[in-house]
Amino acid sequence: MDTRWIPAQPGMALADVDTPALLLDLDLFEHNLQAVLAAAAAAGVRVRPHAKSHKCVQIARRQIAAGAVGICCQKTSEAAAFLAGGVADVLITNEVVGARKLAALARLAAAYPAARLGVCVEDAAVARELGAACLAAAARLDVYVEADVGQGRAGVVDADELIGVARAVVAQPRLRFMGLHAYHGAAQHVRRVDERRQTIAAAAQKAAALRAALHAADLPCEIVTGAGTGSFVYEAASGVYNEVQPGSFALMDADYARNEADPSAPQFAQALFVLAGVMSIRGERVTLDAGLKALAVDSGPPVPAGPGWTVGAVSDEHTVLRRSGDGPPPKLGDKLLLIPGHCDPTVNLHDWIVAVRGERVEAVWSVDARGALF
Amino acid sequence: MDTRWIPAQPGMALADVDTPALLLDLDLFEHNLQAVLAAAAAAGVRVRPHAKSHKCVQIARRQIAAGAVGICCQKTSEAAAFLAGGVADVLITNEVVGARKLAALARLAAAYPAARLGVCVEDAAVARELGAACLAAAARLDVYVEADVGQGRAGVVDADELIGVARAVVAQPRLRFMGLHAYHGAAQHVRRVDERRQTIAAAAQKAAALRAALHAADLPCEIVTGAGTGSFVYEAASGVYNEVQPGSFALMDADYARNEADPSAPQFAQALFVLAGVMSIRGERVTLDAGLKALAVDSGPPVPAGPGWTVGAVSDEHTVLRRSGDGPPPKLGDKLLLIPGHCDPTVNLHDWIVAVRGERVEAVWSVDARGALF
Repeated sequence: MDTRWIPAQPGMALADVDTPALLLDLDLFEHNLQAVLAAAAAAGVRVRPHAKSHKCVQIARRQIAAGAVGICCQKTSEAAAFLAGGVADVLITNEVVGARKLAALARLAAAYPAARLGVCVEDAAVARELGAACLAAAARLDVYVEADVGQGRAGVVDADELIGVARAVVAQPRLRFMGLHAYHGAAQHVRRVDERRQTIAAAAQKAAALRAALHAADLPCEIVTGAGTGSFVYEAASGVYNEVQPGSFALMDADYARNEADPSAPQFAQALFVLAGVMSIRGERVTLDAGLKALAVDSGPPVPAGPGWTVGAVSDEHTVLRRSGDGPPPKLGDKLLLIPGHCDPTVNLHDWIVAVRGERVEAVWSVDARGALF
Repeated sequence: MDTRWIPAQPGMALADVDTPALLLDLDLFEHNLQAVLAAAAAAGVRVRPHAKSHKCVQIARRQIAAGAVGICCQKTSEAAAFLAGGVADVLITNEVVGARKLAALARLAAAYPAARLGVCVEDAAVARELGAACLAAAARLDVYVEADVGQGRAGVVDADELIGVARAVVAQPRLRFMGLHAYHGAAQHVRRVDERRQTIAAAAQKAAALRAALHAADLPCEIVTGAGTGSFVYEAASGVYNEVQPGSFALMDADYARNEADPSAPQFAQALFVLAGVMSIRGERVTLDAGLKALAVDSGPPVPAGPGWTVGAVSDEHTVLRRSGDGPPPKLGDKLLLIPGHCDPTVNLHDWIVAVRGERVEAVWSVDARGALF
């Protein structure tokens, strides 16, 4: 990439950062990281942050240095970016299917023999194909059986199915069966605390029954992993899960802010922003230089970080605001902070994360796994 | 980028393309290109396709080889990608503000003295700053004054304002005042033909009055440019516009398909698809390996290209379908074509466009201006 199109350089004043740029407030990022690790330590569970949110090796390294056991990601190509960046323990919390994709996964594992790489399966035939691919590539992989604990997407739904898939994994000499992946994604944005708690209680009950079935079948279950930012305290306290996978906590977004806060859980600060520039002022209407290509709107439009604005239309390259307060009138070239509706797909739109501390750019980090779709 | 993560190679069978991949059907792309050029030629107007939709040098070159006068884009960094790719006439249909951005624009123009590069202004002070930046960089730029002809976003709103900005442009020796940029973006997805036609009739009336005001003030107005895929036949027939800027026609999307078709206008075929793989089957529920990071949903979820499916949730990396027909049962690894809700932000999620003819990959093109936000 042409270096002219990097929005900032370390040492630069925040006011000089080019727009639109993805900003990470390092003080708040570090607060969030300590908060998640402290809560997990208190509950006696491991933390494996999900890196599909940040896609950034520099963030993953800081998470592991602070005590995380490794990271999660969703795609083989995403895992490749983290392994290449020196992250030595990566779990793909997703199914990988098809000969081409399984061979690529096995080759990746073989390329990093000193690292741990894991993946989920829900199908015995895929487990056998994966085992054969690892044999062909002289690779070893950790394998978790995905269980549907209420999300209603992928995963085995009962003990019989689980045992069948787990036995298929155990039969493959190059695969190490690790346990259960039991993530309830739909629970993360259940707004009310009592409903969120109940949803995870039910998920944990299902996970416990499946773990018991593995033990009854003389199959090991070293790890029960899952959970996200909205629910991880409940999985951590369940006595069933021994690893949690929150991701968004590192950054946060407007959608998570709409969850009712649980006073017994750590409170995460909004650490991620899109810095956008004022490019047109027509009366009370102000147009910013960041639109759908800088801000994902699947979970609603961005929210201005300060008061005095309401958001109108978001189009490809523009967000239109209207003044709703009495603040100072904006000027062309002014820069505003927007809170993305949804952090994960917003980060994926950017090549760079501008890491700021106070009013100063401390670092500019590559979004290493941006666009890692395969 | 690691070449292992390119989804296809030329000559490969379509069935072997890795997923998720952005596919362009070349026969349909060429049909759409001929259709737009024939309609514009019949109306006697120039075509300057908008490249914010495709962001691809190979597509821009084909558009120009077929008769387009150049291309449009939205950002200086996007223009840089096209100029670097040999596209010699680029119009940035957007305002550029702030000293850093104006200097970058002027440097870009200076780096390609044999090319034409244009930009929009709506503010006399910005025109003066731009003129000074071009003087400092020994650059020349074409400048269009943006007029608000009904969109209600940016642009001058009356003749007095227009004359003031145009005079500021004309006073700058390094800027060439070209005329009016009069784009009505909101008209493009007005569903009913009669309303779309009326909206553009009103826009053209405003543009005509502004052009007359320029002439009355002894200011030149060589070009009146604007229009998009949904409306360009009306601008082309207006007698006011002499250049049209449709972009999506090259690719098309599910949102454009919801417009009522005007039988008097060219009909564009859906040429862009996301090829997604079946990664989980649970009864009637089928999960694909393409989600929010492969498909923009700002204009609605993707639409399966064939019958027999309804779309459920779209999450970061997954789209869940349910079978609604009696077709053959799906198998893990099957590949389905999805029509994106909105082509522009979907293309921006991908590094590669897989250009297919029939069942064969003819070429794999880089999305050169992907992520060009600055």
